[in-house]
Amino acid sequence: MSDETTGKAPKAAAPQKPAKKPASAKPANGRSAKASTPQSSETKSRATKTSAAKAPAQKKTARAKAVPVDPASADKAVKKPAAKPAATRTTAARKTAAKKTARKPAPHIRKAPVHGTITGPLVMIGLGSIGKGALPLIERHFEFDAKRFTVIDPVDTDAKLVTDRGYAFQKAALTPDNYKEILTPLLTEGKGQGFVVNLSVDTSSLDIMKLCRKLGVLYIDTVVEPWPGFYFDDKASAADRTNYALRETVRKEKKKNPGGTTAVSCCGANPGMVSWFVKQALLDIAADLGLKAKTPDSQKGWAKLMKKAGVKGIHIAERDTQRATAPKPMDEFWNTWSVEGFLSEGFQPAELGWGTHERWKPKNAHEHKKGCRAAIYLEQPGASTRVRTWCPTPGAQYGFLVTHNEAISIADYFTVEEGKKLKFRPTCHYAYHPANVAVLSLHELFGSAGKVQDKLHVLDEREIQDGTDELGVLLYGHKKNAYWYGSQLSIEETRKLAPYQNATGLQVTSAVLAGMVWALENPEAGIVETDEMDHARCLEIQKPYLGPVKGYYTDWTPLDGRPGFFPEDLDETDPWQFKNILVR
Amino acid sequence: MSDETTGKAPKAAAPQKPAKKPASAKPANGRSAKASTPQSSETKSRATKTSAAKAPAQKKTARAKAVPVDPASADKAVKKPAAKPAATRTTAARKTAAKKTARKPAPHIRKAPVHGTITGPLVMIGLGSIGKGALPLIERHFEFDAKRFTVIDPVDTDAKLVTDRGYAFQKAALTPDNYKEILTPLLTEGKGQGFVVNLSVDTSSLDIMKLCRKLGVLYIDTVVEPWPGFYFDDKASAADRTNYALRETVRKEKKKNPGGTTAVSCCGANPGMVSWFVKQALLDIAADLGLKAKTPDSQKGWAKLMKKAGVKGIHIAERDTQRATAPKPMDEFWNTWSVEGFLSEGFQPAELGWGTHERWKPKNAHEHKKGCRAAIYLEQPGASTRVRTWCPTPGAQYGFLVTHNEAISIADYFTVEEGKKLKFRPTCHYAYHPANVAVLSLHELFGSAGKVQDKLHVLDEREIQDGTDELGVLLYGHKKNAYWYGSQLSIEETRKLAPYQNATGLQVTSAVLAGMVWALENPEAGIVETDEMDHARCLEIQKPYLGPVKGYYTDWTPLDGRPGFFPEDLDETDPWQFKNILVR
Repeated sequence: MSDETTGKAPKAAAPQKPAKKPASAKPANGRSAKASTPQSSETKSRATKTSAAKAPAQKKTARAKAVPVDPASADKAVKKPAAKPAATRTTAARKTAAKKTARKPAPHIRKAPVHGTITGPLVMIGLGSIGKGALPLIERHFEFDAKRFTVIDPVDTDAKLVTDRGYAFQKAALTPDNYKEILTPLLTEGKGQGFVVNLSVDTSSLDIMKLCRKLGVLYIDTVVEPWPGFYFDDKASAADRTNYALRETVRKEKKKNPGGTTAVSCCGANPGMVSWFVKQALLDIAADLGLKAKTPDSQKGWAKLMKKAGVKGIHIAERDTQRATAPKPMDEFWNTWSVEGFLSEGFQPAELGWGTHERWKPKNAHEHKKGCRAAIYLEQPGASTRVRTWCPTPGAQYGFLVTHNEAISIADYFTVEEGKKLKFRPTCHYAYHPANVAVLSLHELFGSAGKVQDKLHVLDEREIQDGTDELGVLLYGHKKNAYWYGSQLSIEETRKLAPYQNATGLQVTSAVLAGMVWALENPEAGIVETDEMDHARCLEIQKPYLGPVKGYYTDWTPLDGRPGFFPEDLDETDPWQFKNILVR
Repeated sequence: MSDETTGKAPKAAAPQKPAKKPASAKPANGRSAKASTPQSSETKSRATKTSAAKAPAQKKTARAKAVPVDPASADKAVKKPAAKPAATRTTAARKTAAKKTARKPAPHIRKAPVHGTITGPLVMIGLGSIGKGALPLIERHFEFDAKRFTVIDPVDTDAKLVTDRGYAFQKAALTPDNYKEILTPLLTEGKGQGFVVNLSVDTSSLDIMKLCRKLGVLYIDTVVEPWPGFYFDDKASAADRTNYALRETVRKEKKKNPGGTTAVSCCGANPGMVSWFVKQALLDIAADLGLKAKTPDSQKGWAKLMKKAGVKGIHIAERDTQRATAPKPMDEFWNTWSVEGFLSEGFQPAELGWGTHERWKPKNAHEHKKGCRAAIYLEQPGASTRVRTWCPTPGAQYGFLVTHNEAISIADYFTVEEGKKLKFRPTCHYAYHPANVAVLSLHELFGSAGKVQDKLHVLDEREIQDGTDELGVLLYGHKKNAYWYGSQLSIEETRKLAPYQNATGLQVTSAVLAGMVWALENPEAGIVETDEMDHARCLEIQKPYLGPVKGYYTDWTPLDGRPGFFPEDLDETDPWQFKNILVR
């Protein structure tokens, strides 16, 4: 891409001179040696002087200890044998399963803490890689009526996982025409407040959320998902295919119908957990800068604190080092989570929350005319848009600027306005280095002008040799340069913590768990995004599943080692300009 | 990169709409189904009505049959036990080896055809992945004096491979100060004409070639290699670091000292073999277009034939599908051939022979002021410059536009001039999809602003699970659209054909073999590039080592599936414009 500001010649990534300049961010004694020593949980506890009712710092340790040594074994125990499946939704498979469990009522073994009770029907939509992983966590941490737990998916390959436990499986694809018909009877059966956990692609988050709130049913999802057709509509403009547009539909509904039954929007790893990390990271930085700020108790307070701390922007900086045991075959898209999900967002325009410090925009960048106006989009697919970023293990790396709800919601949440005047906003975007097999899959995909591979495959925990999903937030541009805070969850630890998922999956499913707990504890909060939730309480629930959760300072900037052998169009007056971050 | 012509907004690769348009180049019944049926060797024989003295078409079959079923076993036999190693270069290791072989003189088993006799000393410089692979081919196909065969390398890890066979190994790094001193005594020992096979990095091809010609010694290399410092000289201009500049030094020497002892410049797989493929592919296309052209016998004739056939350009189109058994570790550069070699050329500016049909140039493209002026260079590293190309197995794919001598020499060779007027020249460049582990290595390398990985590793034949190096030439823009012709050598076949190398290596070493034979048969041809050699004779020698060598027509063009969801700056009036090929 060319430079709008100077009109200089376009350049590809100019490499650092390899023979002469070792990258300053990576000293010889280790890859992330310039990162600060991981902060102790003692240090982190300063974040817990929060307005939240709980005292998470103390509980954190207790909680971590409460994680079962072999939690998978707990999952084998069926908590509530379904002796009498509801006649209306009985299936052959279910009957068998129910009988089986009825015959052998397992003892109620529960090493893991119960975080809450779902008093009404429980419906999980989607039994893909995330649905399967969420199942054991839901079983482990909630009391619920097994007779009224239904899982819906158009594919029944893994139905046995559900029916063997005595829950109902309904093979169905929800559509705009049938979703009310299918969901309403399930959600209105019996007493208590129901809960819908929507972990599916190709279903409208907004429509289902609205139905739930109408029925007084709690709701959670991990993405603002549209009905099929949205992502690959070649008649739609780029602006119409943005996450900005999707998010605005939910924000509009929130404005139109404030309060009411809680519906948690976009509560996976990211979007979701990372919003909680941003708050924690900000508190850490503020403390280390000696700002002596109290933990804010409002959106305004949080945004002002970020402004005060001098944060210019945030990367959702992720490195998935999980390595498949087998090499990727040609013409197959391999990933550590939903390939359909990744393709959908990957083909959407690249989008980013647009900070007030930015002085340059790519030529193909566009603003929005309506809504919060916190983000811009580029007229190019996110999965072929590279940015320079940093994670503790690899150090400097390329990430893909794939659009995500959190890029917009975080930028929006941390916006400081005075009257109608915009005073501060951070830049915020995803900078995602997926697993190597997915990097190769993208290279193959774009190399054939976007022809999707014949086979799409999600690596399960048995197909992964080793590796860690290092997913965190990089808050940059302040006086301490940049600070990464996040989860470093390995596949080895994941296997010990929970069945049916790899590290990437567990980061998502444990965020869903945390969001569900928060919803049960705050059932009348209306429609909320994770930025609007109590980060300390949510992380308290989630942390036992995240492996090491640590903070690292780095002196890396996107100008490190540049220019290399070739001239580059840089803004050397501010390393943290998007101009320096975007690979052009 | 931006568009110089229209100044339109920059775009990343716009994907094809995956849900709607399957790539036309890849029909459902197979990846390369649109390729024509591979041509039979019968069909290929039309290329053999050549001016060369031999009748290759008939010999080809004979030659193929002459390849030993288990050639590796032949290599185990030591042909000429070195009973009396020359005192001047005796080493302890050599003594032992010589004694050993002297004690057990192996029977002179030779299933493979002897192509010639090296009458004087034989010196091979370099015992890396290519040197090791060349060794058994030299042993197998030449008569030579084992007592006067010396291998020189600064690293002696694999010296035993040499000394066990009764040859001398000299541990030395050639430098501008010592090369004459080291080489002269070796090359002047005894009677007959010597041969230098230069397969080393960091030695000046030109200086060694000049010394050889002065001494009347035959010479061959696979690259115009400079003394160390050239590739990573951050004081040098981009123009000074081009292969164009390197090649011009050799062309200048040729012009200054025409004729004389033969020195073959740049005779590996590419540069090298692919120049022979271009001629064969051109003859095939001419025949299929019904041009009834005779096989040309001069540069002018060849260039005019290409013009007449309507070829606009040539990709050296390669897909290496060799898959490592183990996944690539972080911070290691893995490749199927010399990592140092790949890094050197990868950090040089992207370069391409510049065709007369081109209407657009990137903004950072530059012409040369002196020399043949057949090529341009881009101010960006080749290994981060992507182009759209096509190979039979994957179909459409990205390749890297890494600079190579053949991009310049082929464009130069096929130039038609009338007086001083330029009438025709094809565009020509490398479009290289290396093995997946190398794609990942490049992604990692450029992601850290060019910091070279801690460990560089060449996969040997035992570390590769499966795959093929599909290396050919794609002649495009003519009435039959595009024609790929090349070698599809699998690792499995390679293992059967020769020891100590993978498929990539064997394509190089067998080209060296062919070039050596040609030099022995044409010892007074002066300095030559492979374009100037008899392609039919060379391919006759080389083909038994290349796996299937076939031609495929395709209807793919770089406009296929474009634009996708996002607008692109295309030249739709001519799919084969570089504007459409370069990924911007």
